Amino acid sequence: MAGKIICVGLGPGDPELMTVRADRLIRNAEHIAYFRKAGRAGQARRIVEGMLASDVVEHAMEYPVTTELPFDSDEYRNTLSTFYDDWTDRLIALAQTQDIVVLCEGDPFFYGSFMHLHVRLQGRATVEVIPGVPGMTGCWNATGIPITWGDDVLTVLTGTMPEAELTRRMRDADALVVMKTGRNLPKVRRALAAAGRSEDAWLVERGSMPGQRVLRLVDAEDGDCPYFATVLAHGKGRRPGREDSP
Amino acid sequence: MAGKIICVGLGPGDPELMTVRADRLIRNAEHIAYFRKAGRAGQARRIVEGMLASDVVEHAMEYPVTTELPFDSDEYRNTLSTFYDDWTDRLIALAQTQDIVVLCEGDPFFYGSFMHLHVRLQGRATVEVIPGVPGMTGCWNATGIPITWGDDVLTVLTGTMPEAELTRRMRDADALVVMKTGRNLPKVRRALAAAGRSEDAWLVERGSMPGQRVLRLVDAEDGDCPYFATVLAHGKGRRPGREDSP
Repeated sequence: MAGKIICVGLGPGDPELMTVRADRLIRNAEHIAYFRKAGRAGQARRIVEGMLASDVVEHAMEYPVTTELPFDSDEYRNTLSTFYDDWTDRLIALAQTQDIVVLCEGDPFFYGSFMHLHVRLQGRATVEVIPGVPGMTGCWNATGIPITWGDDVLTVLTGTMPEAELTRRMRDADALVVMKTGRNLPKVRRALAAAGRSEDAWLVERGSMPGQRVLRLVDAEDGDCPYFATVLAHGKGRRPGREDSP
Repeated sequence: MAGKIICVGLGPGDPELMTVRADRLIRNAEHIAYFRKAGRAGQARRIVEGMLASDVVEHAMEYPVTTELPFDSDEYRNTLSTFYDDWTDRLIALAQTQDIVVLCEGDPFFYGSFMHLHVRLQGRATVEVIPGVPGMTGCWNATGIPITWGDDVLTVLTGTMPEAELTRRMRDADALVVMKTGRNLPKVRRALAAAGRSEDAWLVERGSMPGQRVLRLVDAEDGDCPYFATVLAHGKGRRPGREDSP
């Protein structure tokens, strides 16, 4: 096999927050691939707009339409699994003759969709992963406040978790980040209130991207929360054993 | 005031894992500042070696020697506090006439030493912070395995915490990262064993840097663990509500 499959972390969204290595790989790519919903431009593709060579070959990996299937049905699982299997085979076929760059928002190894391909590519192709600034790092930067200092414990949760478990874990965290908020915002908000963390919480939408919105969660509406919104609460600087607090 | 104080996140150590914006700011800087121990080159300064303009003015912010003072003494705290106060004043004075770039390893808002200056600079100067790839992201990338997927909970701890609390939180986490390991390694190892996570754990030293070392924690010696070593254990993909596991 002459080529590699290189998964490149794009960072939080601002193209200037890509790493130097990611920037170079994307500008020099002959083949790129990226996930997107059918009929959409795709967030990953949008981030690299204006960076691609004029003769780049694009491979849009369009998720099969599954809105009519329940998320926990066998049919839903099988449809997605077949989709990942197919693209794994297609990327391996391409890598017979050249490198292919797979675009991945944030950091590929941190809740990244690339891992569905990564696990299938093991032992079948040369795979390289370029880390990126995670989306949550772009979000806490947007608030202008350190997320952790001293001996703060950071807990990262997903808004898809059961409410009681969200509450329990929020209560136990110094700093916290809730990924996959979107339509789970009302649940996340109730869990924060039960944990006594409502006043600390921020909502960051499209962190580091055009249309970025940063507000206290108490000032946000439930209705208009995009899928990529992140809820976070900053640590207050748990007293460390070894160093002064500011 | 004509200038800004720009804190630039350097990422995990490999200069190619700096962001495009960080790279440009560092190459164009007329004044840079960085923390280091007296008598040492300093990790932040080492990362930018070869990138600086030939006429750059360097400000090494050398920590006062405090090895003879107990970490929890008033004298230790006052010595450090005076040190941060002094440098805050000096950076503000410099920013009267020009921009100054402050180098910070990893991401400045994630356990960054810059925050001791950041809190003191509030309202006194224009401060800008450029996010970076956190050190831990470079470390989990070095293992070649995704740290979180599905609904995994990630918990970030510091090796300086009490052992019983480390154990309790390790038991409750899907994925975990332990910062500030260093000489706390024996304690961290006992806590992992008590939490039943020894077999899952990895030790990453100098992640993404020359001399990087990645090994299963069970294969590591207690003795030779540098301060910047990170212990981590990967999530196994907690079943999410909305999407198939691979």
